[in-house]
Amino acid sequence: METSAVAPSLTFDTDPSRYQHWKLTYDGPIATLGMDVREDAGLRDDYRLKLNSYDLGVDIELADAVLRIRFEHPEVRAVVITSLKERVFCAGANIFMLGGSSHGFKVNFCKFTNETRLAIEDASANSGIKFVAAINGICAGGGYELALACDEILLVDDGNTAVSLPETPLLGVLPGTGGLTRVVDKRKVRRDLADVFSTVAEGVKGKRAVEWRLVDAVIPKSGFSQAVAQRAAALAATSDRPAQANGIELRPLNPRITGDSIAYSAVSLTIDRDRRTAELELRAPDAAEPDTPDHIVATGDQFWPLRAFRELDDALLHLRFNESEIGTVIVKATGDVAQVVAVDRTLDRQRDHWFVREVIHFIKRTLKRLDLTSRSFFALIEPDNVFSGTLFELALACDRAYMLDHPDRANTIGLSAMNRSSYPMSNGLTRLQTRFLGEPGKVLEALAHEGPFDPQEALAAGLISFAPDDLDWDDEVRLALEERAALSPDALTGMEANLRFAGPETLETKIFGRLSAWQNWIFQRPNAVGEHGALKAYGREGRPEFDWKRT
Amino acid sequence: METSAVAPSLTFDTDPSRYQHWKLTYDGPIATLGMDVREDAGLRDDYRLKLNSYDLGVDIELADAVLRIRFEHPEVRAVVITSLKERVFCAGANIFMLGGSSHGFKVNFCKFTNETRLAIEDASANSGIKFVAAINGICAGGGYELALACDEILLVDDGNTAVSLPETPLLGVLPGTGGLTRVVDKRKVRRDLADVFSTVAEGVKGKRAVEWRLVDAVIPKSGFSQAVAQRAAALAATSDRPAQANGIELRPLNPRITGDSIAYSAVSLTIDRDRRTAELELRAPDAAEPDTPDHIVATGDQFWPLRAFRELDDALLHLRFNESEIGTVIVKATGDVAQVVAVDRTLDRQRDHWFVREVIHFIKRTLKRLDLTSRSFFALIEPDNVFSGTLFELALACDRAYMLDHPDRANTIGLSAMNRSSYPMSNGLTRLQTRFLGEPGKVLEALAHEGPFDPQEALAAGLISFAPDDLDWDDEVRLALEERAALSPDALTGMEANLRFAGPETLETKIFGRLSAWQNWIFQRPNAVGEHGALKAYGREGRPEFDWKRT
Repeated sequence: METSAVAPSLTFDTDPSRYQHWKLTYDGPIATLGMDVREDAGLRDDYRLKLNSYDLGVDIELADAVLRIRFEHPEVRAVVITSLKERVFCAGANIFMLGGSSHGFKVNFCKFTNETRLAIEDASANSGIKFVAAINGICAGGGYELALACDEILLVDDGNTAVSLPETPLLGVLPGTGGLTRVVDKRKVRRDLADVFSTVAEGVKGKRAVEWRLVDAVIPKSGFSQAVAQRAAALAATSDRPAQANGIELRPLNPRITGDSIAYSAVSLTIDRDRRTAELELRAPDAAEPDTPDHIVATGDQFWPLRAFRELDDALLHLRFNESEIGTVIVKATGDVAQVVAVDRTLDRQRDHWFVREVIHFIKRTLKRLDLTSRSFFALIEPDNVFSGTLFELALACDRAYMLDHPDRANTIGLSAMNRSSYPMSNGLTRLQTRFLGEPGKVLEALAHEGPFDPQEALAAGLISFAPDDLDWDDEVRLALEERAALSPDALTGMEANLRFAGPETLETKIFGRLSAWQNWIFQRPNAVGEHGALKAYGREGRPEFDWKRT
Repeated sequence: METSAVAPSLTFDTDPSRYQHWKLTYDGPIATLGMDVREDAGLRDDYRLKLNSYDLGVDIELADAVLRIRFEHPEVRAVVITSLKERVFCAGANIFMLGGSSHGFKVNFCKFTNETRLAIEDASANSGIKFVAAINGICAGGGYELALACDEILLVDDGNTAVSLPETPLLGVLPGTGGLTRVVDKRKVRRDLADVFSTVAEGVKGKRAVEWRLVDAVIPKSGFSQAVAQRAAALAATSDRPAQANGIELRPLNPRITGDSIAYSAVSLTIDRDRRTAELELRAPDAAEPDTPDHIVATGDQFWPLRAFRELDDALLHLRFNESEIGTVIVKATGDVAQVVAVDRTLDRQRDHWFVREVIHFIKRTLKRLDLTSRSFFALIEPDNVFSGTLFELALACDRAYMLDHPDRANTIGLSAMNRSSYPMSNGLTRLQTRFLGEPGKVLEALAHEGPFDPQEALAAGLISFAPDDLDWDDEVRLALEERAALSPDALTGMEANLRFAGPETLETKIFGRLSAWQNWIFQRPNAVGEHGALKAYGREGRPEFDWKRT
């Protein structure tokens, strides 16, 4: 039986003092993330998290830990991910949790866990934090997929411990957290060996796991801890992180949540249930933000770009998990544009400072989270808007942008140095590059434009979709929203997933495009979720029953 | 109600004298493919093919026509695709046909129509045949997707005719024949304009269609035919096709079909219904094949590589549409390897001859058809096999290859110049490059190897998966087949779709990966195919009813 997936209002707010499933410890440049899942502390009570299996709650803590290492511990240069349990590293996503979850929850659960693993790879690629998976026991499915997100995978050689992707042979689904893609595209395992590996429930261990490129080394139990420490130290030595900096504490966001709104300091999300829309508003800082490293660090998590995008990130997750019927999001940005322009100048000038670097990458990841959120986004650009520079990326991330061309009221948008290359999408291109695939000259043209764009300039530059005048504005916007609201939510999800990511594909787009789309398909098939499907049948008596027709 | 999708044994065998829906005419270097669908000649009788809408039967004729232009009319350098009906170009795939088809049929129908459109693009890219879509009336959905496959799209300006993708607004599904991908990735339409275009049922016409890059030109009705002829002539002038060559007639394959087998001259497919497996055997030529252009042309469609791969192509389509419960295909290649080696030498030496070029590209497309067939393929390489050069691509296309290492019987495989670059996969890489993404040096190493590989050499070179000895062979092969047969067919389909295409993505892999996978998902959703879903509700009274939850 499918149950409502989660409590009415799931929250992503946590910190190490509240972790139930992970122990995060620090030893100079090396942090250790020890997995020790509490069986009885799942988000629902219809499953137990045995064998370090995980649910969304476990992954929320993992995502939080990786984020805090980046912001709160600039001295950390390598992270060891391991298990604190005996003979088990991680058994993967909890099968009974999946079996009891709605389709929408399964899909969003996988999307979030994918984003968490990509955040690990982002920390490695952009932040000088390398990850070592120290596999000290059973490592199956999502457990191995977590290891795949690390830079190095070390496997204990105890004659027993294997890595495996048992989803296909045991559950009739795919390893849905990037496993198949990372096996052939990141670790470049030969496709026939990947085929064997992905179909044998018991997995592969020992020398063969190294030969097949599934792990980097197998190490006898006696020398395992020492080898892990050595590899972590060697990877840490490659880092450019500062040795003496003070971390920035990420304090709780504490939004005010009412039935129809969630309000933060610089962000609010207001629901209109009748129209199935939400208004997402970002507000510029009221006063000048700090512009020197010392002042920025002193401002800490209240530095506006970090504060605003942390709030935006949280609002997007709230929307995904708690407001599934809201189909269209109206995006607005308001306040004093001069402050936004000034912040962009600071971000650009101070980008080499470790904390500013982290802020920029956090903004980048939040924008990607928006790209990957399966709701329609329409930007409404009205007088006194602050869609400028970094905030104009929000408009670029929207499916459409409407800009009011008022005869009497000035209304402008602007670009900044931050639109050049700071916020690549999952496809590796900037939003401007993706937008102008057919007219690449327009990217440089737009970036070279002096000062803000009025509606007609913005239209000519291709930066907005439409510029209705004040007579047409209300009707045109209302009609666009009404028309959108009448369309099949599934067709929109598929359509947007195809139109948003033109251009090159990357490991990341392959995971969200090819792999996730196939997994979503399988997550609906009777062979997986029917009464006798493999996912439902797991752990019960008897074998699953399949319709043998190949599609 | 879903009906059994097609007659028990659908055939892909046709020729222009039997076409019911297209008129193929020739005028020197220009061929015209005129669409004139017979309403009452659908493959099933529960729908009528109104307004040049199409079903699989219409597309089988289109695929046949494109193929015949390549082989039978080497003088053709440009093809005009247009409609012979008044005020309608093509209304797309027939909705009542889709609504009444099983999920598996819908998916395989879309796969075939995608392959047909990619064959048009292949003819343009590799064969010197350019395509002009002359849109002389209503052009919706699959009609516009057909135009998108052409090199140029000319739209009549009659004040009425628009191009449109009404699938999302009217049917709650995606334009599933490459439409979304080609709009943003081939024609590089800006994503926000593509969003608008894909959600307005009435489409876009006139100047806006050009400005949005949806078509190349709009032309007044009075000058339309002349403009089309001019563009076709201009494109034809870029071609390198021979002016005076004689075409090669493609005669019927005439397989012998019994309940459990389909047998051609060089290919046979034998079904084992209990094990849900099929044995696909390719046989080498019995005697020496011609090796000079004159002799090859004189041999015509009986030239072994063309004959064998036409048969293989037909067998794969038979498998897809008529044998849906057969999960694993055992691939064998038998006969006199010397003949296969000699044929490869001829193909390589004569590759610049127009007919040999066509043969090589046909082999390439057939191998891609195999890559994209959602069944498991295991190559069994036994003594007297002919897995050499071109035929070794078959083993490389398989999910696994088992090679018998017999102490007394010689068993070898071999590569040839044809493995270098002649048969790229959909991802743009050769099968050897894809196989050795992690160890690129092995590609050159394998190609530089002198003479054939015995089992241990093949294993060391990474060209096969396993080399069991004669004591283990029977058990190991039997066990692999039994294990495969026990797995969820859906999970295998998704798994293989992810493992087979490592490396770069192309327009082609995006269509089959991202777009098709999402379409398959939507094709199962109650919002599309439920009793009140949009696809089922189309043409009935009342609006579809949606579950508004976004996934």
